Amino acid sequence: MIKIVLDCFGGDRSPSANLDGAVLALSRFQDLSLILTGDETALKQGLSGKDYDRSRLEIVHAPEVIGVDEKPTDAIRLKKDSSMMQAVKLLRENEDIAGMVTVGSTGAIVAAAMLRIGRLKNVIRPAFCPIMPKIPGGVVGVCDSGANVDITPAHLQQFAIMGSLYMENVHGIEKPRVGLLNIGTEEEKGDQLRKEAYKLLSNTPNINFTGNMEARELLAGGYDLVVCDGFSGNVLVKSTEGTALQMLRMLKSRIYSKNIYKLGAAIMKPMFTEIKEFMNYQNYGGSVMLGTRKVVVKGHGSSEGTAIAKCIEQAREMQVSSLGEKIEQELPEYVKG
Amino acid sequence: MIKIVLDCFGGDRSPSANLDGAVLALSRFQDLSLILTGDETALKQGLSGKDYDRSRLEIVHAPEVIGVDEKPTDAIRLKKDSSMMQAVKLLRENEDIAGMVTVGSTGAIVAAAMLRIGRLKNVIRPAFCPIMPKIPGGVVGVCDSGANVDITPAHLQQFAIMGSLYMENVHGIEKPRVGLLNIGTEEEKGDQLRKEAYKLLSNTPNINFTGNMEARELLAGGYDLVVCDGFSGNVLVKSTEGTALQMLRMLKSRIYSKNIYKLGAAIMKPMFTEIKEFMNYQNYGGSVMLGTRKVVVKGHGSSEGTAIAKCIEQAREMQVSSLGEKIEQELPEYVKG
Repeated sequence: MIKIVLDCFGGDRSPSANLDGAVLALSRFQDLSLILTGDETALKQGLSGKDYDRSRLEIVHAPEVIGVDEKPTDAIRLKKDSSMMQAVKLLRENEDIAGMVTVGSTGAIVAAAMLRIGRLKNVIRPAFCPIMPKIPGGVVGVCDSGANVDITPAHLQQFAIMGSLYMENVHGIEKPRVGLLNIGTEEEKGDQLRKEAYKLLSNTPNINFTGNMEARELLAGGYDLVVCDGFSGNVLVKSTEGTALQMLRMLKSRIYSKNIYKLGAAIMKPMFTEIKEFMNYQNYGGSVMLGTRKVVVKGHGSSEGTAIAKCIEQAREMQVSSLGEKIEQELPEYVKG
Repeated sequence: MIKIVLDCFGGDRSPSANLDGAVLALSRFQDLSLILTGDETALKQGLSGKDYDRSRLEIVHAPEVIGVDEKPTDAIRLKKDSSMMQAVKLLRENEDIAGMVTVGSTGAIVAAAMLRIGRLKNVIRPAFCPIMPKIPGGVVGVCDSGANVDITPAHLQQFAIMGSLYMENVHGIEKPRVGLLNIGTEEEKGDQLRKEAYKLLSNTPNINFTGNMEARELLAGGYDLVVCDGFSGNVLVKSTEGTALQMLRMLKSRIYSKNIYKLGAAIMKPMFTEIKEFMNYQNYGGSVMLGTRKVVVKGHGSSEGTAIAKCIEQAREMQVSSLGEKIEQELPEYVKG
């Protein structure tokens, strides 16, 4: 049995989306059991009438919620009774709990990962690695997408190693092609950080480093993993999501502007649905954290039930693949650079 | 008469696209005259048979070309006979030449702008400010999109002031809403640079600073100017362009996959054409440089004739609006921070 804690509050649609996700995940995986944290009354009420295996679901009462605008270090220290910090505590204190899923405050879970959950051996800083769909098929990982804004070349090297292991072991991509996000493809492009990272990555064994990568190439298919600082990675992921969303909205509003277009759209409905689902980032789960002592998956604040079920699935897959052990084996000892 | 130099080499489709652009721009603006730099024989040959007002077009021979992979500082020093450096020299030495347009090496034009063309009074560093279409209509500027990778809060303040003047005077947007690109909207988000910049921008008179902005909001319509370091600005612009392009490609390949979709697409052809044109960044010209002593516009390396004509139009508009003088008036004296 794989045991995962689900923080049921802190998202835009919490707790109902979280509960939908929990029930969906339990039905999909018979080897999964869940512990839900949050206000017990609200959770019990939300679950009433739902059909699920009660023997694989447990509730731990946690009446408080960490807001997205709270200062992370204060929140994790002061809101011990919050759904997120109770989930963190359970994860930390119980050997048989494999991981946790949250859609709450990003800052709080990053701080908690560093200060409460802890890192795998030799990991300098844990990093987020969301995946995105590539247009020709398959997925690409982006590491880091927002956990670390001030970094060194050594961080980028670790992101490349951890991310490669993740793409290989969880997403089945052999020798994932690693690109260094930069403002041009030539070796000498970018700031000092990128120039030094380029050299370091070129000399890192066991990764398939293919050089600098421009942001416009993300979905085009030539890379399996992008390594970057958390600031530009965040910009990369969010602008890609935002552009896709805005284009679909534009398409929809144009279709509704003329009856003849409505007719055309009716003919093409399966195609539009397919494209919409393809670009719907809810279908790709959340950002897994790489480098934490136990599995942590952070879903979008706006996650619906299907997205949360996908996050739980990701947490389960990371545990099944023994990714943490592989990272500890592969990661070279950190030499302060 | 507004005199502009056009560097006719260095782009993917040079010189033919450059010549198409030149002829198109001359036909659109009767107050425009152009000086083309590049290999004279090739330019004369490319122009033969084209219909244009010969009294407003001049060729200055420059046989060399700066490649995109050349080291910028070496290139501008050693390739004095290149089409770009001849254009820079003409701009620098002739009071009656208002500006220049190039689709060549970004690094070389950035270096030349600093070291040869020079800055307006009090400008620390010139910055690129491309514009992008917003889905609800209108455009948004992004400053800086790649000229400066190592910056301070004072740079961001200058980008905000110069960019606001540009959006107001050239694009007719009153009190442009300025967003600081960040990984979250709350005031305390981001690295030290962003935190300090937030305070500085909040206390800058004459700009309409609306706070932190997330990358996913770029096309949504709520901002008229995004200020950012050149690295993340570059990622923002390129990932937006790349995503739009990839989505259109996906749409096209899906349409061609089934006959029934081809029928639907035929009905909706005007709509698809409209969307394609709307998202076609060739239609929005290039990246203007803000803060240079004279007007500089850098077009995409892949620019077609229409895009180059648009770049020439942008250079003309910047001159007509006396943007340089306004920047010198508004920019506070640089206090080393």
